[in-house]
Amino acid sequence: MPLFVVATPIGNLEDITLRALRVLKEADLIACEDTRHTRKLLTHYQISKPTVSYHAHNERERSAEILRKLEAGLTIALVSDAGTPLVSDPGFRLVRDAIDRGIPVVPIPGPSALIAAVSVSGLAADEFAFFGFLPARRAARRARLQ
Amino acid sequence: MPLFVVATPIGNLEDITLRALRVLKEADLIACEDTRHTRKLLTHYQISKPTVSYHAHNERERSAEILRKLEAGLTIALVSDAGTPLVSDPGFRLVRDAIDRGIPVVPIPGPSALIAAVSVSGLAADEFAFFGFLPARRAARRARLQ
Repeated sequence: MPLFVVATPIGNLEDITLRALRVLKEADLIACEDTRHTRKLLTHYQISKPTVSYHAHNERERSAEILRKLEAGLTIALVSDAGTPLVSDPGFRLVRDAIDRGIPVVPIPGPSALIAAVSVSGLAADEFAFFGFLPARRAARRARLQ
Repeated sequence: MPLFVVATPIGNLEDITLRALRVLKEADLIACEDTRHTRKLLTHYQISKPTVSYHAHNERERSAEILRKLEAGLTIALVSDAGTPLVSDPGFRLVRDAIDRGIPVVPIPGPSALIAAVSVSGLAADEFAFFGFLPARRAARRARLQ
């Protein structure tokens, strides 16, 4: 332990914080939404670390396995393909279970597509609601927006 | 131009992206919520740039002045004391007016206290609502939450 929840770039590899790079370099294991995708980032910054996949289709088994490793003393970083994990991205089960077991969960703040968009939207952003991905189909999307 | 809207650290100076540092180094002028506060960040990273204050109490005059400089060809970075400008932070008028005049407004994504908190809350974050700062007084705060 701990489990670091690390924000990564959303399109420009320069959009990563100094602390995120350090945490990725120092972690024993990096849990990735897609290991091939994250490998590009790690290779770019010459970070050579073991990775394991963690996504919607294996989260139950993988979460249990990652928790065992955290409890055995490993430091693990959780990343998604882009942006901040858990915000329209996998990680909820792992973070919730880690909190339940008293494992420290530390956010490494960084890029979020939502906040980047809000900041330059030209709309007042004192309050807003986030609904995640809209349905791909036009009728369903229109129904959701109404 | 352009106007860069740059996210800065929310407590740990390491929480700044490589691109944010480059943009601050390359900008002609940095518009700050509080120049003394931002000076600590700039000094830490040995960035020596002219700064100008931009906050709730001078935004009308300052926005006009900054827009003139952008139109004259200067590159300007907008920062708040911490996190992403415009999200519970000054900048709305400047960004809206820049968009209205066709000046490119470019987000430099990075830390947001909102998203960092959501990512490690242990709550499902597929959808959420953001209400900004709650009232400081207990009765008003309670009324708002109900």
